[in-house]
Amino acid sequence: MIAAHELDLIDRLELLRSVAAMSAPNPTIMAHNPLSKIPTLVLDDGAVIIDSRVILEYFDDLAGGGRLIPTQRPARWWALTNAALADGLLDLLILWRNEREKPRGERSLAWLEAFAFKAEATLDRSEEGAPTLEVQPFGVAHIGLGCALSYLDFRFDTLDWRARRPALAKWHAIFAARPSAAATKVVND
Amino acid sequence: MIAAHELDLIDRLELLRSVAAMSAPNPTIMAHNPLSKIPTLVLDDGAVIIDSRVILEYFDDLAGGGRLIPTQRPARWWALTNAALADGLLDLLILWRNEREKPRGERSLAWLEAFAFKAEATLDRSEEGAPTLEVQPFGVAHIGLGCALSYLDFRFDTLDWRARRPALAKWHAIFAARPSAAATKVVND
Repeated sequence: MIAAHELDLIDRLELLRSVAAMSAPNPTIMAHNPLSKIPTLVLDDGAVIIDSRVILEYFDDLAGGGRLIPTQRPARWWALTNAALADGLLDLLILWRNEREKPRGERSLAWLEAFAFKAEATLDRSEEGAPTLEVQPFGVAHIGLGCALSYLDFRFDTLDWRARRPALAKWHAIFAARPSAAATKVVND
Repeated sequence: MIAAHELDLIDRLELLRSVAAMSAPNPTIMAHNPLSKIPTLVLDDGAVIIDSRVILEYFDDLAGGGRLIPTQRPARWWALTNAALADGLLDLLILWRNEREKPRGERSLAWLEAFAFKAEATLDRSEEGAPTLEVQPFGVAHIGLGCALSYLDFRFDTLDWRARRPALAKWHAIFAARPSAAATKVVND
């Protein structure tokens, strides 16, 4: 959705809000995407495009190409790798939250500890990478990391990820103030 | 690894076998990829490329481009979407296996059922898509699906995924016979 705003494509989309809980497959989503995951993009001709990064590339292409994913090397590899790192962080945060929300007896302490350890390490790496984020043109890596950090604020507000990460905190404040991020901010369940 | 074989890049790689269990972060991997996931590609200059699809695109680019990821549309969207579907299937199979291997008390039946339901639905969709797989040039979507099906044979041998899916079973046999797939087949722990 942030990419659609950035590329001025939002008026060409119809948004269907859908619940995609991991333990509760949603038949409405599964009619198009059997993984029952969002985002799932259905084109006018019925063709389906998944997942988030592929949809972003499709939007970028519609908007002329090279707007949110660099075409030059090595900027492209930096952007795609950092987008994958951010998506991996968000994936693990979602798994972590799912584990945390399980009935007490089903929670695995080993898993909860592993999620915390990897999330902190990825945030530390992102803190180191913040100067590069600032100089690279806004794109897929920025969107991915911004969403992962906003998800931390949404679902892990006691984690205090900003505490030892001043550069990342500063960058996220700039990200959150972008019209595309402000327009798509999730504020409740 | 299949992509590297297909593109004749295998001699330019040094393979470091690494254990990347979800509940046991691996410091050796995390020095390069804080998510502790494989594959992680480290270039000669120390730059890191993740994840699987980005590494595949990097290899494809090294080999001239357009070899395993189509550059024309809409073939590109078909390939990237089906690669994402296959990667999503493999991701859920790995989560499913992790859940299944937990101590009995920690296993969530709701999760195990949801994994089974989504996996079966994704395999049914793949059966429907098998004719397209055969006409599209071998690439990222084929590699992803072939790996997910081979993983089923490796870790879910009692699932009998071939039973109601003759077209997919036939396609997988052709895939498994490719030199790149045969050379990288995992046969034990």
